[in-house]
Amino acid sequence: MTEQAILHLPDSQYCYASGDSTVEITLRTGAGDCFDSVTLVYGNKYDYYIKQKRAPLVKKFSDANYDYYTVALGLDDVRLVYVFELVQGGSTYYFSEDGITQTYDFSLAYYNAFQIPYINSADVMREVDWMHSAVFYEIFVDRFCRGDYVKNDAYINLRWGEIPTPKSFAGGDLRGIIDKLEYLRELGVNAVYLTPVFCSVSNHKYDISDYFAVDPQFGSAETLKELVAKAHGYGMKVVLDAVFNHCSENLAQFQDVLKNGRNSPYYDWFIVRGDTIDYAAGNYEYFGVCKYMPKFNTSNREVQKFLAGIAVHWIETCDIDGWRLDVADEVSHDFWRYFRKRVKTAKKDCVILGENWHDSNPFLRGDQFDGIMNYALTKACMDYFVAGTLNAQGFAHKLSALYVRNNRMANGMMLNLLDSHDTHRFYTLAEKNADKVICALAVTYMHTGAPCLYYGTENFTEGGYDPDCRRTMDWDEGKQNIRSLLGVLSALRQCPEIERGEIAFSSENGLFVLERKADGILRLTVNNTKKSAPVRVRGEIAASHKFADNTLAAGGFVIQRISE
Amino acid sequence: MTEQAILHLPDSQYCYASGDSTVEITLRTGAGDCFDSVTLVYGNKYDYYIKQKRAPLVKKFSDANYDYYTVALGLDDVRLVYVFELVQGGSTYYFSEDGITQTYDFSLAYYNAFQIPYINSADVMREVDWMHSAVFYEIFVDRFCRGDYVKNDAYINLRWGEIPTPKSFAGGDLRGIIDKLEYLRELGVNAVYLTPVFCSVSNHKYDISDYFAVDPQFGSAETLKELVAKAHGYGMKVVLDAVFNHCSENLAQFQDVLKNGRNSPYYDWFIVRGDTIDYAAGNYEYFGVCKYMPKFNTSNREVQKFLAGIAVHWIETCDIDGWRLDVADEVSHDFWRYFRKRVKTAKKDCVILGENWHDSNPFLRGDQFDGIMNYALTKACMDYFVAGTLNAQGFAHKLSALYVRNNRMANGMMLNLLDSHDTHRFYTLAEKNADKVICALAVTYMHTGAPCLYYGTENFTEGGYDPDCRRTMDWDEGKQNIRSLLGVLSALRQCPEIERGEIAFSSENGLFVLERKADGILRLTVNNTKKSAPVRVRGEIAASHKFADNTLAAGGFVIQRISE
Repeated sequence: MTEQAILHLPDSQYCYASGDSTVEITLRTGAGDCFDSVTLVYGNKYDYYIKQKRAPLVKKFSDANYDYYTVALGLDDVRLVYVFELVQGGSTYYFSEDGITQTYDFSLAYYNAFQIPYINSADVMREVDWMHSAVFYEIFVDRFCRGDYVKNDAYINLRWGEIPTPKSFAGGDLRGIIDKLEYLRELGVNAVYLTPVFCSVSNHKYDISDYFAVDPQFGSAETLKELVAKAHGYGMKVVLDAVFNHCSENLAQFQDVLKNGRNSPYYDWFIVRGDTIDYAAGNYEYFGVCKYMPKFNTSNREVQKFLAGIAVHWIETCDIDGWRLDVADEVSHDFWRYFRKRVKTAKKDCVILGENWHDSNPFLRGDQFDGIMNYALTKACMDYFVAGTLNAQGFAHKLSALYVRNNRMANGMMLNLLDSHDTHRFYTLAEKNADKVICALAVTYMHTGAPCLYYGTENFTEGGYDPDCRRTMDWDEGKQNIRSLLGVLSALRQCPEIERGEIAFSSENGLFVLERKADGILRLTVNNTKKSAPVRVRGEIAASHKFADNTLAAGGFVIQRISE
Repeated sequence: MTEQAILHLPDSQYCYASGDSTVEITLRTGAGDCFDSVTLVYGNKYDYYIKQKRAPLVKKFSDANYDYYTVALGLDDVRLVYVFELVQGGSTYYFSEDGITQTYDFSLAYYNAFQIPYINSADVMREVDWMHSAVFYEIFVDRFCRGDYVKNDAYINLRWGEIPTPKSFAGGDLRGIIDKLEYLRELGVNAVYLTPVFCSVSNHKYDISDYFAVDPQFGSAETLKELVAKAHGYGMKVVLDAVFNHCSENLAQFQDVLKNGRNSPYYDWFIVRGDTIDYAAGNYEYFGVCKYMPKFNTSNREVQKFLAGIAVHWIETCDIDGWRLDVADEVSHDFWRYFRKRVKTAKKDCVILGENWHDSNPFLRGDQFDGIMNYALTKACMDYFVAGTLNAQGFAHKLSALYVRNNRMANGMMLNLLDSHDTHRFYTLAEKNADKVICALAVTYMHTGAPCLYYGTENFTEGGYDPDCRRTMDWDEGKQNIRSLLGVLSALRQCPEIERGEIAFSSENGLFVLERKADGILRLTVNNTKKSAPVRVRGEIAASHKFADNTLAAGGFVIQRISE
């Protein structure tokens, strides 16, 4: 037994309430340490010293270094204490807060047993159920579709189809999105995420000067309301982009500080070093290297109220279904906790998705976000499908390691993306290998959480780093596309296996395997090698690419529905 | 290198802001894995791919399984990204969110470097400075001293000096404490923690029926105000007991629910299964097995406001200096976050100390408590001094393991106790071995955080489990005591080494060593073996017990002040 590999953390993804009387518990052990049994010896806080129950843990995930054993329990008394009993080679060990010991004194357990002290309803992370079967589509609004030909279009300086520069305006708008809702529905999309739509001088609108108005280039509050209503008519959710880390230098409050310095009532809305702002010297906090994007002081309660008020306003006036949080990790936890309360009070199943590129567990414990843009999964897909630094087993290990970073609820609300307006297009990274895109998409559609297509993925739009990844959508019906395949994959997301099934990652004969299990099993097999491989057919073929005669060609995948 | 032993957790005790532009970072590695170097390769978020700085990490703590390397940094830009570089046997390794690799691609660091994304002021855990040099004294009010001989004392049923039963009333009161402030000051005490003082039918008063009135047995709000004012006159803080997990069945709000069931406006203040309360069946949540102590629903905002209002009321009316939180871990995190905001707004350096017996890191991240009653340290002292299941090295390892559970700020605000009204007396556990008590006390006085004497410890009061540990204070001046030794130890707590010094634990020749280092070093050596041992004198002797002629007798300790 590799004692040093064993890990259990209090009140974490390793032990949490998954409901008002249910808990899920995980123990990490060394990879390949074979145990005869791993058992939870548990009880109620106040009589554990005399009464213990037992429940076996099962190995659910493995990565290169660790195995993860889990158990789910229903509780009568919601004060849980427990230790782990590990049996190996006939010897019994106990693992408590005091580490591994050969005996355990239950009469002193109140000092060192593990515990979930009490399940308080307010602390339980709740699921946004619609996320489980969602299929997202990210739209960079200026580049997707122009629908309004009446608006003042003097600002448009890019012909549709031309390669954009950082300062290009192509004319896409909300009316254009409304016009394409039917298109999106046919694609299987049931949730759209729009990059910012509020007043801003830029094409991306991440520098907002008025949070309470839709930019006239894109439409009006009325257009947004119509878009949401029509989307809802299609059973489709609408998520907007919350740019709350920073604003535009044109925001009235910042202009007031520029003018009045410390005498401005908004001085503490920003983080300024000195009595006045020296724009040239940049003596204030801003986003990245962009002085035109002053950073909000999100530790300030007034700012918190202003920003949460914006979030609630658009929920109340337009009935939107979620917020994607820009630069979410640079904003204070304190604000996000307040934000969550305000948003969830306004609309219970409004989803909150952070833009987080890193391990973001501290945001995903139930008091802040529901899920994040799963860029760690993006990177794993790059490593497996593009760079080749992971093989099938390595990919299975990596996805397992990413899964155990967070609890089950957060995993069910991840936004799983291959690319976005902030990355290269995956198709371009993959050197236009369509098979790579298709197989990687199959992984995101089968994964817990929701896949998120970046507009144009369905017709293999190319693009390097910003602004190249923000090209205009190609509406040529003749262009090579995978719309029908995506429709099939989307339909699968309404199955119980995807809606509430467990997930498991493995590899078999050099092929990657992802299984979702509820009543039955959906089993995805991916061949990311350079040669064909046999795949035993064990059930109905639900979707496939380059699969025939029990043979999965290089670059193919197959999803089987297995009933037992 | 034991790769499986390596641990670093995002936004945790392993990496945190210790101020508005300072961070502290820890990497855990396998015990005894000798590295040629462990280096932090760090930079600013937005140019890390081209510009990296380097800082060495130093091994600060070790336990049986792990070594802990740490580094503290001052930052210009408060967006920190980093990976660890480990050199061993001439080979270089990198440790990032992707684990150990032999190379690291800084151009893709935005996917998998570690980070402290931005230091937001609201998220920084602030220190209550007075805790660093505090010496606490816990008083079980009914048993410490009676000062008021005018009050109606018909309730008193225990003669002073007799052994108490669960239903005994001995007559101790706030006036008695006021009378003994001079005694406490001489003992070196500069903070008292009182068990509950509000209206309640019990002697312990953990079942409160009126949170806005002092129990007449103990005095009045005026007496409390006078006590606090006089204590402040002595430079002494006063911490009260916040019983917010549950109340008495006599609380008006619970009585209303008993009477009116679901029609009561207070129905949701408690957790009731059914329309009405069936007291006999106990169809509601209560503390432990005590139906007379109904549990508050601390997920309910109204309850949160009521309870936080109590906390603020006593700060505002009596100027108290802290709250000790009863059964803190069964109360919702959501409440404690709100409570902290209300309390710290009312009085910035009001200390918040949870009653937590277990690893309580989730409460100690800056948004909830300052510190906890350090029962894990209590247990370690029991294991080393009493049970003998730890030797000196084991004790050093255990205290190291407990230290690294939390960040430096929380460690500086721990309440370090050997016993309390909820445990056996340490003196009794140690089978009346005074040396054990003395040496264990020396450890608590030297440790980060504040020592907390349970009343009577200074004169070796005996006591088994509740109610025996709640005997009346023996005021016989002739009784064996260690008051002068405690005075010397208390004086030491005003030194810079204790107020702001680092801590280190080790063992040498079977003796336990604890060092605090600021400009100079305070070095405690404890001999918990059965025979004398030589101790080299390297500086001035600041305090000692059974130490003479460079020899530390069994059961002795020595504290040296070393200047280099």
